Amino acid sequence: MVQVIPPRSAAAIELKAGQHLKVIDPEGEQVADLLALNRHDMAEVLSSGRTLDYQETIYLTRGDILWSNRSRQMLAILEDTVGRHDFLLTPCSADTFRIIYGHAHPHRGCQGNLHAALAPYGVAAEGLPACFNVFMNVPVDAQTGRLKVLPPLSKPGDHVLFRAEMDLLVGLTACSAEQSNNYRFKPIHYQVLD
Amino acid sequence: MVQVIPPRSAAAIELKAGQHLKVIDPEGEQVADLLALNRHDMAEVLSSGRTLDYQETIYLTRGDILWSNRSRQMLAILEDTVGRHDFLLTPCSADTFRIIYGHAHPHRGCQGNLHAALAPYGVAAEGLPACFNVFMNVPVDAQTGRLKVLPPLSKPGDHVLFRAEMDLLVGLTACSAEQSNNYRFKPIHYQVLD
Repeated sequence: MVQVIPPRSAAAIELKAGQHLKVIDPEGEQVADLLALNRHDMAEVLSSGRTLDYQETIYLTRGDILWSNRSRQMLAILEDTVGRHDFLLTPCSADTFRIIYGHAHPHRGCQGNLHAALAPYGVAAEGLPACFNVFMNVPVDAQTGRLKVLPPLSKPGDHVLFRAEMDLLVGLTACSAEQSNNYRFKPIHYQVLD
Repeated sequence: MVQVIPPRSAAAIELKAGQHLKVIDPEGEQVADLLALNRHDMAEVLSSGRTLDYQETIYLTRGDILWSNRSRQMLAILEDTVGRHDFLLTPCSADTFRIIYGHAHPHRGCQGNLHAALAPYGVAAEGLPACFNVFMNVPVDAQTGRLKVLPPLSKPGDHVLFRAEMDLLVGLTACSAEQSNNYRFKPIHYQVLD
Protein backbone atom coordinates (compact mmCIF):
# COMPACT_ATOMS: atom_id res chain seq x y z
CA MET A 1 0.00 0.00 0.00
CA VAL A 2 1.37 3.41 -0.98
CA GLN A 3 1.61 6.00 1.78
CA VAL A 4 1.57 9.72 1.05
CA ILE A 5 3.75 12.36 2.70
CA PRO A 6 2.08 15.69 1.94
CA PRO A 7 4.21 18.63 0.74
CA ARG A 8 6.43 20.20 3.42
CA SER A 9 5.83 17.46 6.00
CA ALA A 10 7.42 14.26 7.33
CA ALA A 11 6.54 10.73 8.43
CA ALA A 12 7.99 8.31 10.97
CA ILE A 13 8.32 4.73 9.67
CA GLU A 14 9.22 1.59 11.64
CA LEU A 15 11.18 -1.01 9.69
CA LYS A 16 12.14 -4.50 10.81
CA ALA A 17 15.51 -5.86 9.66
CA GLY A 18 14.99 -7.35 6.20
CA GLN A 19 11.98 -5.20 5.33
CA HIS A 20 12.19 -2.89 2.32
CA LEU A 21 11.35 0.79 2.01
CA LYS A 22 10.49 2.13 -1.43
CA VAL A 23 10.74 5.93 -1.71
CA ILE A 24 8.86 7.26 -4.74
CA ASP A 25 8.84 10.71 -6.32
CA PRO A 26 5.30 10.78 -7.78
CA GLU A 27 5.56 14.09 -9.67
CA GLY A 28 9.30 14.37 -10.26
CA GLU A 29 11.86 16.95 -9.02
CA GLN A 30 11.06 16.46 -5.35
CA VAL A 31 13.53 15.68 -2.55
CA ALA A 32 12.96 13.34 0.42
CA ASP A 33 15.33 13.69 3.40
CA LEU A 34 15.81 10.28 5.00
CA LEU A 35 17.04 9.81 8.56
CA ALA A 36 17.55 6.40 10.18
CA LEU A 37 18.02 5.44 13.82
CA ASN A 38 18.53 2.08 15.52
CA ARG A 39 15.00 1.23 16.71
CA HIS A 40 16.37 -0.14 20.00
CA ASP A 41 18.99 2.54 20.74
CA MET A 42 18.41 6.00 19.32
CA ALA A 43 22.04 7.00 19.95
CA GLU A 44 22.94 4.96 16.86
CA VAL A 45 22.15 7.07 13.80
CA LEU A 46 22.95 7.39 10.14
CA SER A 47 26.45 8.83 9.58
CA SER A 48 27.38 10.69 6.43
CA GLY A 49 31.05 10.81 7.39
CA ARG A 50 31.31 7.07 8.03
CA THR A 51 29.35 6.20 4.89
CA LEU A 52 31.39 8.41 2.55
CA ASP A 53 34.58 6.96 4.04
CA TYR A 54 33.59 3.30 3.67
CA GLN A 55 31.82 3.59 0.30
CA GLU A 56 34.50 5.96 -1.12
CA THR A 57 31.98 8.15 -2.92
CA ILE A 58 29.79 11.19 -2.30
CA TYR A 59 27.10 9.87 -4.69
CA LEU A 60 25.54 6.72 -3.26
CA THR A 61 23.44 4.47 -5.47
CA ARG A 62 22.46 0.84 -6.10
CA GLY A 63 24.87 -1.54 -4.36
CA ASP A 64 25.94 0.98 -1.74
CA ILE A 65 25.41 0.75 2.02
CA LEU A 66 24.41 3.52 4.44
CA TRP A 67 26.40 3.16 7.68
CA SER A 68 25.78 4.27 11.26
CA ASN A 69 27.96 6.32 13.62
CA ARG A 70 28.90 2.95 15.18
CA SER A 71 30.17 1.72 11.81
CA ARG A 72 27.35 -0.78 11.37
CA GLN A 73 25.24 -1.25 8.24
CA MET A 74 21.81 0.40 8.49
CA LEU A 75 20.38 0.41 4.94
CA ALA A 76 21.33 -1.16 1.61
CA ILE A 77 20.31 0.49 -1.67
CA LEU A 78 18.83 -2.26 -3.85
CA GLU A 79 17.25 -0.24 -6.66
CA ASP A 80 17.75 3.33 -7.86
CA THR A 81 16.14 4.71 -11.03
CA VAL A 82 17.78 8.15 -10.66
CA GLY A 83 21.37 7.72 -9.50
CA ARG A 84 21.88 11.16 -7.97
CA HIS A 85 21.26 11.85 -4.30
CA ASP A 86 22.96 14.02 -1.68
CA PHE A 87 24.63 13.00 1.56
CA LEU A 88 26.58 16.21 2.26
CA LEU A 89 23.99 18.68 3.53
CA THR A 90 21.91 18.82 6.69
CA PRO A 91 18.11 19.10 6.41
CA CYS A 92 16.66 22.51 5.66
CA SER A 93 15.58 24.28 8.85
CA ALA A 94 14.33 27.64 10.11
CA ASP A 95 18.00 28.69 10.20
CA THR A 96 18.50 27.63 6.58
CA PHE A 97 15.57 29.73 5.43
CA ARG A 98 16.79 32.67 7.50
CA ILE A 99 20.47 32.49 6.40
CA ILE A 100 20.21 31.28 2.77
CA TYR A 101 16.80 32.63 1.71
CA GLY A 102 16.58 35.68 3.99
CA HIS A 103 13.11 34.78 5.29
CA ALA A 104 12.06 36.88 8.28
CA HIS A 105 9.45 34.32 9.42
CA PRO A 106 11.01 31.05 8.28
CA HIS A 107 9.32 27.66 7.85
CA ARG A 108 10.56 24.96 10.25
CA GLY A 109 11.80 22.97 7.25
CA CYS A 110 12.68 19.28 7.07
CA GLN A 111 14.59 19.58 10.34
CA GLY A 112 11.48 20.78 12.16
CA ASN A 113 9.24 18.30 10.37
CA LEU A 114 11.56 15.39 11.18
CA HIS A 115 11.69 16.45 14.80
CA ALA A 116 7.89 16.65 15.01
CA ALA A 117 7.53 13.20 13.41
CA LEU A 118 10.23 11.56 15.57
CA ALA A 119 9.61 13.34 18.89
CA PRO A 120 6.98 10.75 19.99
CA TYR A 121 9.81 8.19 19.85
CA GLY A 122 12.01 10.29 22.11
CA VAL A 123 14.32 11.64 19.40
CA ALA A 124 15.72 15.07 20.33
CA ALA A 125 15.82 17.81 17.71
CA GLU A 126 19.46 18.57 18.34
CA GLY A 127 20.51 14.97 17.86
CA LEU A 128 19.46 14.94 14.21
CA PRO A 129 22.50 14.31 11.99
CA ALA A 130 22.94 14.84 8.24
CA CYS A 131 20.23 12.97 6.34
CA PHE A 132 20.51 10.94 3.16
CA ASN A 133 18.72 13.34 0.85
CA VAL A 134 16.97 11.13 -1.71
CA PHE A 135 16.73 12.71 -5.19
CA MET A 136 18.63 15.84 -4.04
CA ASN A 137 20.99 17.03 -6.78
CA VAL A 138 24.16 18.68 -5.44
CA PRO A 139 26.92 18.77 -8.05
CA VAL A 140 30.44 19.65 -6.88
CA ASP A 141 33.22 21.33 -8.85
CA ALA A 142 36.19 19.01 -8.43
CA GLN A 143 38.77 21.80 -8.68
CA THR A 144 37.27 24.52 -6.51
CA GLY A 145 34.97 22.39 -4.35
CA ARG A 146 32.07 24.78 -5.05
CA LEU A 147 28.68 23.08 -4.75
CA LYS A 148 25.27 23.99 -6.13
CA VAL A 149 21.78 22.85 -5.22
CA LEU A 150 20.10 22.11 -8.58
CA PRO A 151 16.67 20.64 -9.43
CA PRO A 152 16.50 16.87 -8.88
CA LEU A 153 17.04 14.58 -11.87
CA SER A 154 14.00 12.49 -10.83
CA LYS A 155 11.06 12.07 -13.22
CA PRO A 156 7.49 11.18 -12.14
CA GLY A 157 7.45 7.67 -10.67
CA ASP A 158 11.19 7.36 -10.08
CA HIS A 159 12.13 5.46 -6.93
CA VAL A 160 14.85 4.16 -4.64
CA LEU A 161 14.44 0.82 -2.85
CA PHE A 162 16.22 0.32 0.48
CA ARG A 163 16.57 -2.81 2.63
CA ALA A 164 16.79 -2.37 6.41
CA GLU A 165 19.91 -4.10 7.73
CA MET A 166 18.74 -3.72 11.35
CA ASP A 167 15.49 -2.76 13.07
CA LEU A 168 15.11 0.93 12.27
CA LEU A 169 13.11 4.03 12.97
CA VAL A 170 13.13 6.10 9.78
CA GLY A 171 12.15 9.74 9.36
CA LEU A 172 11.23 10.71 5.79
CA THR A 173 10.22 14.12 4.45
CA ALA A 174 8.72 15.80 1.44
CA CYS A 175 11.33 18.54 1.35
CA SER A 176 10.42 22.13 2.17
CA ALA A 177 13.26 24.01 0.45
CA GLU A 178 12.64 25.78 -2.83
CA GLN A 179 16.16 25.28 -4.21
CA SER A 180 15.97 21.52 -3.61
CA ASN A 181 12.69 20.85 -5.43
CA ASN A 182 12.73 23.45 -8.22
CA TYR A 183 10.40 25.90 -6.46
CA ARG A 184 7.29 23.73 -6.27
CA PHE A 185 6.31 21.85 -3.13
CA LYS A 186 5.25 18.29 -3.95
CA PRO A 187 4.42 15.12 -2.01
CA ILE A 188 6.57 12.02 -1.57
CA HIS A 189 5.17 8.49 -1.66
CA TYR A 190 6.54 5.42 0.09
CA GLN A 191 5.85 1.74 0.59
CA VAL A 192 7.02 -0.68 3.27
CA LEU A 193 7.47 -4.12 1.71
CA ASP A 194 8.35 -7.48 3.28
CA MET B 1 54.66 29.45 22.54
CA VAL B 2 54.44 26.46 20.22
CA GLN B 3 52.74 23.36 21.63
CA VAL B 4 53.49 19.88 20.30
CA ILE B 5 50.95 17.13 19.67
CA PRO B 6 52.99 13.92 19.40
CA PRO B 7 52.26 11.47 16.55
CA ARG B 8 48.96 9.54 16.91
CA SER B 9 47.66 11.63 19.82
CA ALA B 10 45.36 14.57 20.52
CA ALA B 11 45.14 17.71 22.65
CA ALA B 12 42.26 19.66 24.22
CA ILE B 13 42.53 23.43 23.78
CA GLU B 14 40.40 26.15 25.40
CA LEU B 15 39.85 29.25 23.27
CA LYS B 16 38.16 32.49 24.26
CA ALA B 17 36.11 34.28 21.62
CA GLY B 18 38.51 36.43 19.60
CA GLN B 19 41.58 34.29 20.34
CA HIS B 20 43.45 32.70 17.44
CA LEU B 21 44.55 29.11 16.93
CA LYS B 22 47.43 28.47 14.55
CA VAL B 23 47.68 24.84 13.39
CA ILE B 24 51.12 24.05 11.95
CA ASP B 25 52.34 21.01 10.02
CA PRO B 26 56.03 20.98 11.06
CA GLU B 27 57.23 18.19 8.76
CA GLY B 28 54.65 18.31 5.95
CA GLU B 29 52.07 15.74 4.78
CA GLN B 30 50.42 15.38 8.19
CA VAL B 31 46.70 15.73 8.96
CA ALA B 32 45.16 17.34 12.08
CA ASP B 33 41.51 16.55 12.82
CA LEU B 34 39.90 19.57 14.46
CA LEU B 35 36.71 19.36 16.53
CA ALA B 36 35.08 22.39 18.17
CA LEU B 37 32.40 22.60 20.86
CA ASN B 38 30.72 25.53 22.56
CA ARG B 39 32.72 25.85 25.81
CA HIS B 40 29.53 26.60 27.76
CA ASP B 41 27.20 24.02 26.16
CA MET B 42 28.77 20.91 24.70
CA ALA B 43 25.61 20.07 22.74
CA GLU B 44 26.63 22.78 20.27
CA VAL B 45 29.28 21.31 17.98
CA LEU B 46 30.91 21.84 14.62
CA SER B 47 28.60 20.81 11.76
CA SER B 48 29.95 19.72 8.40
CA GLY B 49 26.45 19.66 6.86
CA ARG B 50 25.58 23.21 7.97
CA THR B 51 29.00 24.56 6.97
CA LEU B 52 28.98 23.06 3.46
CA ASP B 53 25.44 24.38 2.96
CA TYR B 54 26.19 27.96 4.08
CA GLN B 55 29.67 28.26 2.50
CA GLU B 56 28.59 26.44 -0.69
CA THR B 57 31.85 24.51 -1.01
CA ILE B 58 33.42 21.25 0.17
CA TYR B 59 36.90 22.84 0.27
CA LEU B 60 37.02 25.51 2.96
CA THR B 61 39.87 27.99 3.05
CA ARG B 62 40.77 31.60 3.93
CA GLY B 63 37.63 33.73 4.28
CA ASP B 64 35.36 30.80 5.11
CA ILE B 65 33.46 30.20 8.35
CA LEU B 66 32.97 26.91 10.22
CA TRP B 67 29.39 26.73 11.54
CA SER B 68 27.76 24.84 14.42
CA ASN B 69 24.75 22.50 14.45
CA ARG B 70 22.82 25.54 15.78
CA SER B 71 23.79 27.56 12.69
CA ARG B 72 26.11 29.86 14.60
CA GLN B 73 29.64 30.83 13.62
CA MET B 74 32.31 28.90 15.55
CA LEU B 75 35.60 29.54 13.71
CA ALA B 76 36.79 31.84 10.92
CA ILE B 77 39.71 30.83 8.71
CA LEU B 78 42.03 33.87 8.55
CA GLU B 79 45.14 32.37 6.93
CA ASP B 80 45.74 29.18 4.95
CA THR B 81 49.04 28.40 3.24
CA VAL B 82 47.79 25.08 1.78
CA GLY B 83 44.19 25.53 0.56
CA ARG B 84 43.13 21.90 0.67
CA HIS B 85 41.40 20.39 3.70
CA ASP B 86 38.63 17.85 4.22
CA PHE B 87 35.25 18.28 5.89
CA LEU B 88 33.52 15.15 4.55
CA LEU B 89 34.97 12.30 6.57
CA THR B 90 34.67 11.34 10.23
CA PRO B 91 37.86 10.84 12.27
CA CYS B 92 39.72 7.56 11.88
CA SER B 93 38.74 5.08 14.59
CA ALA B 94 39.20 1.46 15.61
CA ASP B 95 36.32 0.68 13.22
CA THR B 96 38.08 2.52 10.38
CA PHE B 97 41.24 0.51 10.83
CA ARG B 98 39.23 -2.72 11.04
CA ILE B 99 37.00 -2.03 8.01
CA ILE B 100 39.33 -0.10 5.65
CA TYR B 101 42.75 -1.44 6.64
CA GLY B 102 41.75 -4.92 7.88
CA HIS B 103 43.63 -4.58 11.18
CA ALA B 104 42.77 -7.32 13.66
CA HIS B 105 43.95 -5.27 16.67
CA PRO B 106 43.19 -1.73 15.54
CA HIS B 107 44.54 1.55 16.94
CA ARG B 108 41.89 3.78 18.57
CA GLY B 109 42.60 6.43 15.96
CA CYS B 110 41.75 10.13 16.06
CA GLN B 111 38.25 9.30 17.32
CA GLY B 112 39.67 7.50 20.36
CA ASN B 113 42.37 10.14 20.88
CA LEU B 114 39.83 12.97 20.69
CA HIS B 115 37.59 11.20 23.15
CA ALA B 116 40.47 10.67 25.59
CA ALA B 117 41.48 14.34 25.31
CA LEU B 118 37.92 15.68 25.67
CA ALA B 119 36.50 13.20 28.19
CA PRO B 120 37.70 15.29 31.19
CA TYR B 121 35.38 18.03 29.90
CA GLY B 122 32.41 15.65 29.84
CA VAL B 123 32.35 15.08 26.07
CA ALA B 124 30.94 11.64 25.20
CA ALA B 125 32.67 9.53 22.55
CA GLU B 126 29.44 8.95 20.66
CA GLY B 127 28.67 12.64 20.44
CA LEU B 128 31.71 13.36 18.28
CA PRO B 129 30.63 14.67 14.86
CA ALA B 130 32.62 14.97 11.63
CA CYS B 131 35.78 16.99 12.22
CA PHE B 132 37.36 19.66 10.05
CA ASN B 133 40.36 17.67 8.88
CA VAL B 134 43.14 20.23 8.48
CA PHE B 135 45.58 19.42 5.64
CA MET B 136 43.61 16.26 4.67
CA ASN B 137 43.52 15.86 0.89
CA VAL B 138 40.33 14.21 -0.38
CA PRO B 139 39.75 14.87 -4.08
CA VAL B 140 36.33 14.03 -5.52
CA ASP B 141 35.47 13.01 -9.08
CA ALA B 142 32.70 15.41 -10.09
CA GLN B 143 31.02 12.93 -12.43
CA THR B 144 31.07 9.71 -10.42
CA GLY B 145 31.41 11.15 -6.93
CA ARG B 146 34.29 8.76 -6.20
CA LEU B 147 36.64 10.10 -3.54
CA LYS B 148 40.25 9.26 -2.70
CA VAL B 149 42.36 9.91 0.36
CA LEU B 150 45.68 11.22 -1.01
CA PRO B 151 48.80 12.57 0.75
CA PRO B 152 48.33 16.12 2.07
CA LEU B 153 49.57 19.02 -0.04
CA SER B 154 51.16 20.61 3.06
CA LYS B 155 54.92 21.31 3.12
CA PRO B 156 57.01 21.68 6.31
CA GLY B 157 55.88 24.79 8.19
CA ASP B 158 52.55 25.25 6.42
CA HIS B 159 49.75 26.49 8.65
CA VAL B 160 46.11 27.48 9.01
CA LEU B 161 45.09 30.34 11.31
CA PHE B 162 41.61 30.25 12.89
CA ARG B 163 39.80 32.88 14.96
CA ALA B 164 37.34 31.67 17.61
CA GLU B 165 33.95 33.31 17.08
CA MET B 166 32.67 32.08 20.47
CA ASP B 167 34.26 30.56 23.58
CA LEU B 168 35.32 27.10 22.42
CA LEU B 169 36.69 23.79 23.53
CA VAL B 170 38.78 22.44 20.64
CA GLY B 171 40.07 18.91 20.14
CA LEU B 172 43.05 18.64 17.79
CA THR B 173 44.91 15.52 16.65
CA ALA B 174 48.07 14.42 14.92
CA CYS B 175 46.26 11.95 12.70
CA SER B 176 46.74 8.21 13.11
CA ALA B 177 45.67 6.95 9.67
CA GLU B 178 48.32 5.89 7.16
CA GLN B 179 46.34 6.93 4.07
CA SER B 180 45.85 10.44 5.44
CA ASN B 181 49.49 11.22 6.20
CA ASN B 182 51.37 9.29 3.51
CA TYR B 183 52.31 6.38 5.75
CA ARG B 184 54.47 8.21 8.25
CA PHE B 185 53.18 9.32 11.65
CA LYS B 186 54.27 12.87 12.41
CA PRO B 187 53.53 15.50 15.07
CA ILE B 188 51.32 18.57 14.74
CA HIS B 189 52.23 21.93 16.28
CA TYR B 190 49.85 24.64 17.44
CA GLN B 191 49.81 28.08 19.01
CA VAL B 192 47.08 29.96 20.85
CA LEU B 193 47.44 33.68 20.11
CA ASP B 194 45.55 36.69 21.50
